[in-house]
Amino acid sequence: MSESHHPVDHVRDAWYIAATSKHVERGPIACEILDTPLVLFQGEGGKIAALLDRCAHRNVPLSVGRVRGDEIECGYHGWRYGADGICRHVPTMCGPVEGRARRVESYPVREQQGYVWVYMNPEEPSPDHEPYRFPYLDEATYSSTAYSYDFSASVHATLENILDVPHTAFLHGGLFRNSKEANEITVLIQRYTDRVEAQFVGEPRPGGILGWLLAPRGGTTEHWDRFLLPSVAEVEYKLGRSHLLISSALTPLGDFKTRMYAVASLRFPVIGRLISRFLRPFAMMVVRQDAKMLTHQSEAIRRFGGERFASTAVDVLGAHILRLLRRSARGESRPSTTAEPVGDPERMIMRV
Amino acid sequence: MSESHHPVDHVRDAWYIAATSKHVERGPIACEILDTPLVLFQGEGGKIAALLDRCAHRNVPLSVGRVRGDEIECGYHGWRYGADGICRHVPTMCGPVEGRARRVESYPVREQQGYVWVYMNPEEPSPDHEPYRFPYLDEATYSSTAYSYDFSASVHATLENILDVPHTAFLHGGLFRNSKEANEITVLIQRYTDRVEAQFVGEPRPGGILGWLLAPRGGTTEHWDRFLLPSVAEVEYKLGRSHLLISSALTPLGDFKTRMYAVASLRFPVIGRLISRFLRPFAMMVVRQDAKMLTHQSEAIRRFGGERFASTAVDVLGAHILRLLRRSARGESRPSTTAEPVGDPERMIMRV
Amino acid sequence: MSESHHPVDHVRDAWYIAATSKHVERGPIACEILDTPLVLFQGEGGKIAALLDRCAHRNVPLSVGRVRGDEIECGYHGWRYGADGICRHVPTMCGPVEGRARRVESYPVREQQGYVWVYMNPEEPSPDHEPYRFPYLDEATYSSTAYSYDFSASVHATLENILDVPHTAFLHGGLFRNSKEANEITVLIQRYTDRVEAQFVGEPRPGGILGWLLAPRGGTTEHWDRFLLPSVAEVEYKLGRSHLLISSALTPLGDFKTRMYAVASLRFPVIGRLISRFLRPFAMMVVRQDAKMLTHQSEAIRRFGGERFASTAVDVLGAHILRLLRRSARGESRPSTTAEPVGDPERMIMRV
Repeated sequence: MSESHHPVDHVRDAWYIAATSKHVERGPIACEILDTPLVLFQGEGGKIAALLDRCAHRNVPLSVGRVRGDEIECGYHGWRYGADGICRHVPTMCGPVEGRARRVESYPVREQQGYVWVYMNPEEPSPDHEPYRFPYLDEATYSSTAYSYDFSASVHATLENILDVPHTAFLHGGLFRNSKEANEITVLIQRYTDRVEAQFVGEPRPGGILGWLLAPRGGTTEHWDRFLLPSVAEVEYKLGRSHLLISSALTPLGDFKTRMYAVASLRFPVIGRLISRFLRPFAMMVVRQDAKMLTHQSEAIRRFGGERFASTAVDVLGAHILRLLRRSARGESRPSTTAEPVGDPERMIMRV
Repeated sequence: MSESHHPVDHVRDAWYIAATSKHVERGPIACEILDTPLVLFQGEGGKIAALLDRCAHRNVPLSVGRVRGDEIECGYHGWRYGADGICRHVPTMCGPVEGRARRVESYPVREQQGYVWVYMNPEEPSPDHEPYRFPYLDEATYSSTAYSYDFSASVHATLENILDVPHTAFLHGGLFRNSKEANEITVLIQRYTDRVEAQFVGEPRPGGILGWLLAPRGGTTEHWDRFLLPSVAEVEYKLGRSHLLISSALTPLGDFKTRMYAVASLRFPVIGRLISRFLRPFAMMVVRQDAKMLTHQSEAIRRFGGERFASTAVDVLGAHILRLLRRSARGESRPSTTAEPVGDPERMIMRV
Repeated sequence: MSESHHPVDHVRDAWYIAATSKHVERGPIACEILDTPLVLFQGEGGKIAALLDRCAHRNVPLSVGRVRGDEIECGYHGWRYGADGICRHVPTMCGPVEGRARRVESYPVREQQGYVWVYMNPEEPSPDHEPYRFPYLDEATYSSTAYSYDFSASVHATLENILDVPHTAFLHGGLFRNSKEANEITVLIQRYTDRVEAQFVGEPRPGGILGWLLAPRGGTTEHWDRFLLPSVAEVEYKLGRSHLLISSALTPLGDFKTRMYAVASLRFPVIGRLISRFLRPFAMMVVRQDAKMLTHQSEAIRRFGGERFASTAVDVLGAHILRLLRRSARGESRPSTTAEPVGDPERMIMRV
């Protein structure tokens, strides 16, 4: 299996995290999703809006202006726009100011679980689905920790990295796998209309620090890796009575710039809160090692003018992620709440 | 009125300031006009020449060489060129050295009022008009102060900014207008073959520091804004017995790099020289605020791949400047000393 | 004679120095030749290999990996490649790993006289000629000193610079010629199938420091400048009983990046070793002056979008170098050990 290809097309009919709610409180902020400059602002009424970051008049970014009531005001000539992008005020001008030419594009926004999600198609005022929810973030029986990171890599290279098993033993060394205790395990891959899941059967307890943290006394391991359109990666472990889910929602800032908003939720008997303290620094160590390698990879891809990957069966989810993203860019796959399985599970053998 | 367009074409049949006379005295200097690298040098006889900054031999910039008598000598192999760009000397070579292939392009030059003007069409040895003169710079009854500034903006965005009224109340706040005292005033716009003028009728004394400086005891205000091809902006005030003219001659260095050479000339009863001391720091404060906004504007235009402006009647001269520049780039308008009015004045109402 | 042209096409069927042997000992190193990223590594057996610096799997540069026995291991997933570029190991994978899609391109390598030469055509496993040998580097009667330098210039501009006589009097001033003592001398130019040689007849002893160093008591001067495909420049002096050969083998890293590996070999009666101590700092002074001028030249060529040279007879070898490089890029000229003269020598007069 050999492929030569360009970066995946942009998926615009989708929700991405633009910022945390906290970040938007402090005034208008500029952000970029799919190479599109946006301004986010929170009006007096508390509602958050996302507009194209360009004043209709003389193209100055609205993000260098300020919030006035429920409107944003441009810093150059003082034009003001509502959350719908319609111009409401032009200083020095007599007569009506609203009009198509004086409007800036407005994007659907949802504030949810402390994150600001933006739907990247301004032509679609009522999207047919809602943003992803971090499954256990609001549950009291779980301790959750949130972190974010900017990768110099494409969104699909980053997704594949998060859900890739072979590199963990190798790149992260003793951190949570051990390349010396190589066991043959079975992997079941189930495709769905908007996602794909790999289940690892017969996997021993993870080695290194992670295994020790989650199951100090050992026990049975259950492990799933999942990709959900448009850009969510889930890694789930059940070990004895403990349960860990790391959800990473990625935002494609540009072709080789990807922001990860991750939540690690842990249910652990008795001292769960204490254990979860160690999760964040541990995750950040892994993330930094991955980020460095992804930067090397992106630089090489850019230098050579494009990707040229050779895949193997042990890449497991990599090719599936790419296929789903391509289908989605062509409008053939969309996120849904009622995911239908596609075909029977595939079975493969892997040495970890 | 909505427009979507690319930067204005270059106007090459025109004079632009390349440097001050003082700057050229110190040796050959490199400068760039309309993205064209030039070398300016002053021969022993005092005459200043402008050549394309590239030796005909091996393309080394002549500006890294040195002046020898009335010629400039390349620093690599020592080829020498006269003010006409003809090669006069090639070391180690026997026989005649002049010839078309060994010539570099030479541009018409005028030294005038302390500025070095260059005509940017090397094919035109005798331009049909002379450079702009700063009107009161040589008059003893006026105190004049000169300053310059480099904007990260196109020449037309900078011209519009200098001659734009609505942004002053807004961007420059208390500096010389006051958005609270909104008055309806009449504006008369008169077009000419090579320029356009806006006269503001019934305008109150400027608020803020400027008004206080120019007319501490109040009085009648007369105010004109003018654009003259190819790139001069004039702002003129008459308040009681005082008279102020700020002339800004712009040089397009590149698409988004514009250098402004400005002269503010003030006639003021009794303490004119003292008052004019305050003009420069005041002007520089305004310029810095404008420059910051123009940089934001240019960055957005570049990021979006072009301008997309929506204009209103209160932009007054903006659309006229653009039309004249475009006509000029097509060779349909040229600077002249006998400007003919085009049509009757237009009249409009504005709240300032 | 006037030319307007783009940089010379790449000559790929040729040997270039990629690094010194010493440099490769310390682990895998990245280098770039003709804009092609390579990784060099030395296996346990001592053999040096050159591969395209891109893992076949996920395109991470192999140079950020490490050497394992006689193989290089990628730092991301641990794939391992032999000196022939064939993949020998994929961790976690069961079954055979070798295959065309998992192979990276491998380049012929020769280690010779302390330099690592790479043949830049990976399709050609057995080149029909061997790399250039530095003529006196291994001879005990000569004192040799080696140095290298990176020029911001094309390979042909650098070659011409090294072999150009007129600029030395001018740019290097008193260092080794003296523009005041202008003598007319005869130059004989002999072309060969793969090289060109200029012999300078009747040349006085070099002025400045060089002349004094080589022939403190004067004597007859013999002087040759030579260009050999693909990128070697030789400057040879015989003065009385002393003999000096400076060989510069150039490596085109990219269009405007050229690395020079030079060896100066001197045979000098009695105190040769002492005199040769002065050669290196002297050569580096000359090189730095040249490098500065070549950088100016390259910047101008880039700014103007291409070269536009006007040549004269006194440029001597410049045009010949360009013609040979172009013939070579088209496959019409190749380095050989039995160079055949082409035509009779040309004769010209020059004032130095």
